Amino acid sequence: MPDILHRVGIKTSSPDNTYKALTTIEGLSAWWTNNTQGQGDTVGGVLQFRFGDRGGFDIKVIELHPGRRVLWQVMEGPEEWIGTRIGFELKQDGDFSIVLFKHEGWKEAVEFMHHCSTKWALFLMSLKSLVETGNGHPSPNDIKIDNWN
Amino acid sequence: MPDILHRVGIKTSSPDNTYKALTTIEGLSAWWTNNTQGQGDTVGGVLQFRFGDRGGFDIKVIELHPGRRVLWQVMEGPEEWIGTRIGFELKQDGDFSIVLFKHEGWKEAVEFMHHCSTKWALFLMSLKSLVETGNGHPSPNDIKIDNWN
Repeated sequence: MPDILHRVGIKTSSPDNTYKALTTIEGLSAWWTNNTQGQGDTVGGVLQFRFGDRGGFDIKVIELHPGRRVLWQVMEGPEEWIGTRIGFELKQDGDFSIVLFKHEGWKEAVEFMHHCSTKWALFLMSLKSLVETGNGHPSPNDIKIDNWN
Repeated sequence: MPDILHRVGIKTSSPDNTYKALTTIEGLSAWWTNNTQGQGDTVGGVLQFRFGDRGGFDIKVIELHPGRRVLWQVMEGPEEWIGTRIGFELKQDGDFSIVLFKHEGWKEAVEFMHHCSTKWALFLMSLKSLVETGNGHPSPNDIKIDNWN
């Protein structure tokens, strides 16, 4: 089964700020979408991510290892996303907090998966920018990549 | 086997300019790396892409369908890349020239593959920018994503 994979390195002395950006409403709404609600810092918590009038995702937190790993499962959203898992592995490498990203469980490598792969890369660059500078570019100010946005 | 997939949409009235940016030295050197040599507009042609002091890739053109499809095979470069195929499918959708990108034939989903996936997304955004505005951001002025560059 095909996966979406990415790697970014965030210039910061520890993975703690990255972990915070992945588990708090304040953090998530500053790099993914400014319309984020729910609970990201507790296993079993559910997060609601919404993107203007284009719907969004309800995501359950299924693993949390502070400073090391965050794993989510998609509960509601576009059909292709339901049941997929989104993982962020964190590790420190010198001056960089490395994020290894995997969005797995896609049934088929549909055109929408191609779109989501590119979109994830740019959102992870938004996460990098947020942690490094204090400013990300979450939806609705996200970088548009194609006619699906 | 895992693949790297991406989708970008380029605001332009036909895929011809995108095709040109994928098959000419002038085009390739304006979005991927400014150190590009060889022949990209003939099946069987070999292109040399070099990235500063970090080496690069020798790539053979194996399919060309003007305005529709470009397929390459990697001949020389990092071990993980040798033998892999890089494809660009083009199609027009309204005001957008859509590029469906696939880098296939990876043996394993190694950490370097995660890096290359993110890097490809940003280079494809550079291709989009080149065709839309006349300016890309090829190496060495490419956007850095992590400690591997």
